[in-house]
Amino acid sequence: MSPAAAIAALCVLAAQPVAPSDAARITGEALRGESHRILSDLTDRVGARLAGSPGADAAVLWAVEWFRTQGIPVRVEPVLVNHWVRGEERAELIAPKGGRPQPLAVTALGMSAPTPPGGLAAEVVEVRSLEEVAALGVKVKGRIVLFQHDMKDASGYGKSAGLRMRGPAAASRQGAAAALVRSLSTASFRLPHTGTTFFPPGERAIPAAALAVEDAELLHRMLARGPVTVRLVLGGRLADPPLAPSANVVAEIRGAEKPDEVVVIGAHLDSWDLGTGAIDDGAGVAMVLDTMRIAASMPRPPRRTLRAVLFMNEENGAEGAVAYHEASLAAGTRHVAAMEADSGAGRPTGIEVTAGQGGVAAVRAMAAPLAALGASEVVVGGGGVDISPLAYAGVPFLSVAQETSRYFDWHHSAADTFDKVDPRALAEATAAFAWMAWALADSQAVLPSQPAPKQPPWWNRASP
Amino acid sequence: MSPAAAIAALCVLAAQPVAPSDAARITGEALRGESHRILSDLTDRVGARLAGSPGADAAVLWAVEWFRTQGIPVRVEPVLVNHWVRGEERAELIAPKGGRPQPLAVTALGMSAPTPPGGLAAEVVEVRSLEEVAALGVKVKGRIVLFQHDMKDASGYGKSAGLRMRGPAAASRQGAAAALVRSLSTASFRLPHTGTTFFPPGERAIPAAALAVEDAELLHRMLARGPVTVRLVLGGRLADPPLAPSANVVAEIRGAEKPDEVVVIGAHLDSWDLGTGAIDDGAGVAMVLDTMRIAASMPRPPRRTLRAVLFMNEENGAEGAVAYHEASLAAGTRHVAAMEADSGAGRPTGIEVTAGQGGVAAVRAMAAPLAALGASEVVVGGGGVDISPLAYAGVPFLSVAQETSRYFDWHHSAADTFDKVDPRALAEATAAFAWMAWALADSQAVLPSQPAPKQPPWWNRASP
Repeated sequence: MSPAAAIAALCVLAAQPVAPSDAARITGEALRGESHRILSDLTDRVGARLAGSPGADAAVLWAVEWFRTQGIPVRVEPVLVNHWVRGEERAELIAPKGGRPQPLAVTALGMSAPTPPGGLAAEVVEVRSLEEVAALGVKVKGRIVLFQHDMKDASGYGKSAGLRMRGPAAASRQGAAAALVRSLSTASFRLPHTGTTFFPPGERAIPAAALAVEDAELLHRMLARGPVTVRLVLGGRLADPPLAPSANVVAEIRGAEKPDEVVVIGAHLDSWDLGTGAIDDGAGVAMVLDTMRIAASMPRPPRRTLRAVLFMNEENGAEGAVAYHEASLAAGTRHVAAMEADSGAGRPTGIEVTAGQGGVAAVRAMAAPLAALGASEVVVGGGGVDISPLAYAGVPFLSVAQETSRYFDWHHSAADTFDKVDPRALAEATAAFAWMAWALADSQAVLPSQPAPKQPPWWNRASP
Repeated sequence: MSPAAAIAALCVLAAQPVAPSDAARITGEALRGESHRILSDLTDRVGARLAGSPGADAAVLWAVEWFRTQGIPVRVEPVLVNHWVRGEERAELIAPKGGRPQPLAVTALGMSAPTPPGGLAAEVVEVRSLEEVAALGVKVKGRIVLFQHDMKDASGYGKSAGLRMRGPAAASRQGAAAALVRSLSTASFRLPHTGTTFFPPGERAIPAAALAVEDAELLHRMLARGPVTVRLVLGGRLADPPLAPSANVVAEIRGAEKPDEVVVIGAHLDSWDLGTGAIDDGAGVAMVLDTMRIAASMPRPPRRTLRAVLFMNEENGAEGAVAYHEASLAAGTRHVAAMEADSGAGRPTGIEVTAGQGGVAAVRAMAAPLAALGASEVVVGGGGVDISPLAYAGVPFLSVAQETSRYFDWHHSAADTFDKVDPRALAEATAAFAWMAWALADSQAVLPSQPAPKQPPWWNRASP
């Protein structure tokens, strides 16, 4: 038997003593649907929660109050966040050859600079990659760069998101006046989908907006007819001062046997401002909160400490992730596993794990009670922005894979609202999440550490 | 043989002499897809065409120019239209019990009155029928009436549209401050769907807006928690003067044998202002125009005159329909059939006919060449707002039934844009339309007259 196989076998054995009746109790409790009621409360009563906004402040108070009502010890962890504020925003196709002006549906990207008060007007240059912007060189100077892409389904997000994240900075480096990014959307309902964009320190921030899919296609067609000029008015900007005080919300159920070993389960409390952040990431918050409620209702606490962290500003700076990581380092926290719920409210389809050798086999044993939910298949993968710093300490990651076929229809748009969430699907995802969290906190052994990431830490780098 | 059966048999015989090779030629020409190019030109270069707006004026010039380019005689028929102008519009849920303010996605209904400049704020009363408003009596006074409904698919439009059309006037009669109507939509993408509303002469117009489906559901949930107050700002109003000069566009291919017998084919040139009116009714305009292009390209003209009418302001007053009807009466025009294309750009599923006894059988014979398109089934039905006055003269109506499962996802919203149109489906609908128009104009006999409508003419009544 190889050392790796021996570890795997040990992990399987170690995982099995988790009582099967616990699984039935936990999943049964989750399937009662409290997650949906929590989400209704967050989205209807608090609403949008852009970091630095009154909505985000209200969400912190709401979460603290929720944990207090449940009798679960809770604290806030101060975080300074980017204080970016949306302003007036509109755009118009002007003076197309042989055509009439037409309004364009735009919304500023997070961290966009404002246009001059009256807006700016410039010719549009269309590109499909960062390399193409660089290759165009001076032809981009003074222009509005339009980033086109062909995102068709959820699998295309990773590739196209780079255009939104780094396209405006690439355009800025060539002297562009502004950038428009075709919305990263799998639906066409004339809705711009926002999201953050990144200007490295010292680079000139320019006005940058998401454009509705329809309008990106209109500009493409009009460019085939001749030069196209767009007028853009964006008021969104960093506030003065550019950072605002905010907080992560941290709640714990102390472990009975090994309280210093921490299983952290996280979601992000902030959301974009256009909708009410129901799928991104109200659903994750509801899954984490309901998991804590269920764990607190068990006849005994788990062996290890189960810690919920509601991170602040995953969307527009991820300062909450960094703050939690640094506070953990300072406190010498021993994380034995981390789970992040930030994949919407779809039903669970399996479990993803990033750990050392034998990790998949160990998690497979833990996940067996999820077979009835169709969520017991275990594959390598998972993680999330907010727990990503913990990878550098080798902390194993575990995620619930969820159905996401419609996630990017609504993601970061005004249509990310409560009605998009199917109560049964969310309850099932919560059941899978709650059971895996409990299993990690209560099993005899811990998962093997994940290998060190190849990329240097993003939070010390000039680019995310 | 009964007289009716004899007529039917005669009509079938009469219809058959239409040359089958004409059908192949006409449908083949339509399937080349010129309709899609016409639609691209109208939506990209002219764009939105609300009656009374510069876009509508541009559309009239565009259509005249199109006919001229085709060498088809064309004229404009002056029409005075409601000159309603959209203004600023926004709404906010304020002061909900235990909750935070939230923005609501609204858009004024056509013919809405404006709010005071700073807007108005009032408690919301939710109703589901016109009867419920009347029954509430003084409880409605000073309130904002919210009209809820459960439209789920295209078949629900007819029922729910009454709330949009007559709900605001019903609320006004009870002293309401304003009305909100849940959007008549089969999709939920935070888009309000506009449409006209009707205030009978002498009734007080009040501010009236469509509300996104999501926000109608939000208000419903918040009302279950306690009183709900909404602030509404609507700038949309009738201009001064309230009527603007505009025009129908009328083009003709003169019949070779019976030029005084007219087959009229129509669509409406105006559109709502939020999108570019691609499915409503740019598609219909493209079908009518391509039909004329194809008819003009035939080796010989049809026996009867084929007349295209692009009606003005079907959406917000239907003055174009009335003007055409009155001009026809004055001229003593002998219409032998009327077709209206105003059901979007979906593929054809059959033919609908409203005529006297024997009409269905006669049309069935004409429609036989459409079997390959799946469009040869003939049922009773069809018609349209713009040709409806001709019913009182007994003019038979014929329509192409089209696939409409997604039509109300986009209808009257900002998402009614060119990209929603499948070129092949539009070409097939055009093929069916063009062939039936030619068959009506070229057959030996005419269809039997439709019986007189039971309802009095809408254009002389206080209510549409």
